[in-house]
Amino acid sequence: MLHWSPRSPFVRKVMVAAHELGLTDRLALTRTVVRMGQPNAALLPDNPLSKIPTLVLPDGTAIHDSLVICDYLDAEAGGGRLVPAAGPARWAALTRHALGNGWLDLLILWRNERDKPDAARTAEWLDSFAAKTDATLARLERDAAGWPAGRCDIGDIAVGCALCYLDFRFADLGWRDGRPALAAWHDGIAARPSFRATEAVDD
Amino acid sequence: MLHWSPRSPFVRKVMVAAHELGLTDRLALTRTVVRMGQPNAALLPDNPLSKIPTLVLPDGTAIHDSLVICDYLDAEAGGGRLVPAAGPARWAALTRHALGNGWLDLLILWRNERDKPDAARTAEWLDSFAAKTDATLARLERDAAGWPAGRCDIGDIAVGCALCYLDFRFADLGWRDGRPALAAWHDGIAARPSFRATEAVDD
Repeated sequence: MLHWSPRSPFVRKVMVAAHELGLTDRLALTRTVVRMGQPNAALLPDNPLSKIPTLVLPDGTAIHDSLVICDYLDAEAGGGRLVPAAGPARWAALTRHALGNGWLDLLILWRNERDKPDAARTAEWLDSFAAKTDATLARLERDAAGWPAGRCDIGDIAVGCALCYLDFRFADLGWRDGRPALAAWHDGIAARPSFRATEAVDD
Repeated sequence: MLHWSPRSPFVRKVMVAAHELGLTDRLALTRTVVRMGQPNAALLPDNPLSKIPTLVLPDGTAIHDSLVICDYLDAEAGGGRLVPAAGPARWAALTRHALGNGWLDLLILWRNERDKPDAARTAEWLDSFAAKTDATLARLERDAAGWPAGRCDIGDIAVGCALCYLDFRFADLGWRDGRPALAAWHDGIAARPSFRATEAVDD
């Protein structure tokens, strides 16, 4: 059973991974709402940090976070399809994942901060989130020009989900402006069935 | 070259791992200061999220985050010493790591929030950080009773560093009260040379 929500970008990574690996029938979804300011009591026994996704295996063991669940699914599918087993390809994919995933962490904090009442906002944080996002986009634009078409490893899934999250929650940022290589790469990955089947929809 | 700081608990994980694996001579340390509200321009080329630890390999490739660096060091030392290669032991260790590491993320946010001016604090966040920390400590107390003495895998390193961080930044929490199994486990891991050699020291 997967603690799931339709709009969590971290849950989406797992769902994209399951689609890519042909394992969606292994994930019985339970809608579990989490918010920064309110622990979900039903989730705490499976994950005391009250974070999703959290996957409960048939024997009752719970595993998390999204990277661990993706690594588990990859192993269940034979291994090496989402996470290269060894060598420079492994560190490259896992570092690309850490960039996409760490960026998502930042974007969630940015959104929380942005949506606070004026008096509670910390201006230098907002500036810092914007500057780090600019630096990340610049780096991805430089790198994406060399990424092979059709690759969809754990790093691509994280970066793809982060860019989709930008479209969903930071549409006014216009991240595609001046970043043609990244925009073209994102068009490609977002057109995959795994991404199409897992699009976030606002209420 | 490792972007390093003496008080980052995430950097400490990497330093403990290097000590455990006998690889400290592979890490030339560069002191790199990061703060939530101010990107470090010197770090951005290696990590556009401006986070430490970030490891620059001899060929100039940068890898991050702390888990990826630990996984890399483990592979360099032959593999399977910090991260079990497969099976239930792997998911258990990686989930324990995700718990310790996600808790550290929360504790950093908690400290940031706690140290703000009154008007900028969000009360329900502070309450939520405390509740999730209680749930995490309760879970660890229950689990630690069954942990084998002398084990020091990637999950133990993360949980050990998180508990040390509590002592360092949340000493008033009195986390040992009512948690004898966890306190005894922590005494054991904190006495290891790898932990002793990497203690945080306040200025």
